[in-house]
Amino acid sequence: MNFTIIKEDGAARAGLLETANGTIRTPAFMPVGTNATVKALCPGELKGIGAEVILSNTYHLYLRPGHTTIRSLGGLHRFMGWQGPILTDSGGFQVYSLSPLRRVSDEGVEFQSHIDGSMHFMTPETAIEIQIALGSDIFMAFDECPPWPATREEVQRAVKRTADWAVRCKIKKDGEASGGKNALFGIVQGGAFEDLRRESLEGLLETGFDGYAVGGVSVGEPKEQMHETINLMGPILPAGRPRYLMGIGDLKDCLEAVRAGFDMFDCVMPTRNARNGTLFTSAGRVSIKKTGYKEDQNPLDPDCSCYTCRNFSRGYLRHLFLSREILSMRLNTIHNVHFYLEFFRMMRESIMEGRFPEFKRRWDAVQW
Amino acid sequence: MNFTIIKEDGAARAGLLETANGTIRTPAFMPVGTNATVKALCPGELKGIGAEVILSNTYHLYLRPGHTTIRSLGGLHRFMGWQGPILTDSGGFQVYSLSPLRRVSDEGVEFQSHIDGSMHFMTPETAIEIQIALGSDIFMAFDECPPWPATREEVQRAVKRTADWAVRCKIKKDGEASGGKNALFGIVQGGAFEDLRRESLEGLLETGFDGYAVGGVSVGEPKEQMHETINLMGPILPAGRPRYLMGIGDLKDCLEAVRAGFDMFDCVMPTRNARNGTLFTSAGRVSIKKTGYKEDQNPLDPDCSCYTCRNFSRGYLRHLFLSREILSMRLNTIHNVHFYLEFFRMMRESIMEGRFPEFKRRWDAVQW
Repeated sequence: MNFTIIKEDGAARAGLLETANGTIRTPAFMPVGTNATVKALCPGELKGIGAEVILSNTYHLYLRPGHTTIRSLGGLHRFMGWQGPILTDSGGFQVYSLSPLRRVSDEGVEFQSHIDGSMHFMTPETAIEIQIALGSDIFMAFDECPPWPATREEVQRAVKRTADWAVRCKIKKDGEASGGKNALFGIVQGGAFEDLRRESLEGLLETGFDGYAVGGVSVGEPKEQMHETINLMGPILPAGRPRYLMGIGDLKDCLEAVRAGFDMFDCVMPTRNARNGTLFTSAGRVSIKKTGYKEDQNPLDPDCSCYTCRNFSRGYLRHLFLSREILSMRLNTIHNVHFYLEFFRMMRESIMEGRFPEFKRRWDAVQW
Repeated sequence: MNFTIIKEDGAARAGLLETANGTIRTPAFMPVGTNATVKALCPGELKGIGAEVILSNTYHLYLRPGHTTIRSLGGLHRFMGWQGPILTDSGGFQVYSLSPLRRVSDEGVEFQSHIDGSMHFMTPETAIEIQIALGSDIFMAFDECPPWPATREEVQRAVKRTADWAVRCKIKKDGEASGGKNALFGIVQGGAFEDLRRESLEGLLETGFDGYAVGGVSVGEPKEQMHETINLMGPILPAGRPRYLMGIGDLKDCLEAVRAGFDMFDCVMPTRNARNGTLFTSAGRVSIKKTGYKEDQNPLDPDCSCYTCRNFSRGYLRHLFLSREILSMRLNTIHNVHFYLEFFRMMRESIMEGRFPEFKRRWDAVQW
């Protein structure tokens, strides 16, 4: 993996992240493909919309269909027919947020499947093994993400564990020949405690990673807290490595984070909202079910060039949504993901042209 | 509308049905787009798969979003982005099969919406008005379809009413300037009673229609009864007009009907089965959830050239189905509809080349 910053505008950066399966222009938004599919989209559509990288979930794929099944079917890229870069999370966050039962020890996490109730044990080593079997381009280290709110002691213990586990992930990955072409990112924890955030980063820096992620954000804390963390971490994460703010997808938060120097983002917001009939446009949020759209001949967003906006009226989109048609979820998802990727493309262009502050001001004024 | 038979092989016919929005090669299978969308597919996919005509449901579109809404959004073609021919049924069958409450009189049918419980009154005249508002290429006359089983008296009354209503449909359509470019098909009822079927057809012939459909089949009667009706009606329906067997989609039944001289078919079988994980292949039916497909790298049907079979493994299709992913319904629907349309294309070719009996023998041997 190779990361080059080609332009800076304040702390905001435009970069190129080269992986074995293609180059990602940063700042980059990664659509989420939890079960080896970005919900409602096929790989050709994703590519056509402009996706350069997707995220897939280790926890889900480990449980179903199983990483060994995906390996025997040629790895995740071939399995799902997506030829571009894939980042896999470590499963850590899902173990804490989805599993109905879990027991954490220094060794790893015993947890119960949210699908069939079966018990499993995941360690830093198995998290890497699974990601090697999946064959993703960027692995994430296995971390402990404390809930919100958490006491200082809880967060401190999580920071310590996350550091130890990060070392074990690195050792495991370096020891596997088949892990050689893949990048490994470390994850900074520390919650709302500035000193613990710094401590967490220092631990990771000692080990050394290909990129650095900030986890434990958007876990229920107030926006101001999240922005404090963003503005604390941006300046101190190593400049020459990609900086990834995990799970963030509110576009105003993304603007704030890019201004602070972050490069990578992922979130289910565009896809999940699409399925619920909430659409992002250049004029703000649209709830497509509104009665006012019943006989509206206009495209959802007249400024948008996506397949949905080029071919269908708001009236048709409303009808499909009220009829709970699959095509509703498809057309809405195409639009929202296209909107997000286009937003990021324009944001990058503004950095390249030295007008990111203007770009940010313009979009901060939109009501989302 | 213009219908030309270009080749016959026994009673089987290959024809061309020209409509204002394109030419349909017959025998033709019409995918069903109930709510102004063939479930899970977009118009471009439908065209790519080879669909030359689709069917849409008057009853559903009348209730939601309403035919006046579709008219104000430019008609059904523009509304749903499908440029090819559309046949709309009359709503008759759905009033009987879906409405929780209905009262039939010679004037029309009072019925309750299955969506919101509201009461409505549909007459032959309103059925035509709705179809004019939708702007479909082929209208169906409003008929009364008795349940199975029904007494001779019930069927006789339905035949009489269907004949009277057909006359009223014709008068209504001929009286509307905007109905001029659209074709109108009459529907033969008569259940399992040969003399009533003949009587029903005679009534329609007196009025004169652009095409003739056989209704009241596949309503619960035994297969033998259905085949008797097919083989009774095929030879006596007028030779120079398209012959449409309504709601039939079992491929062996289609073979039987084409042999008897039928030209048009519609059925939810390929689309509904796709969503339930049942797929049609050259080797027969496949239930994609079977454990044996877990690590199966092969395409669903090695003989198939559809997007699904060219790009994905049985193992991936199984995973998507078990994960209840939207992409499962999409990929399965693409395959099944492609399979049906390809089957009809090959069937037509066999008629063109005078080897339909061989084609029928070959496919009758497959286990569906």
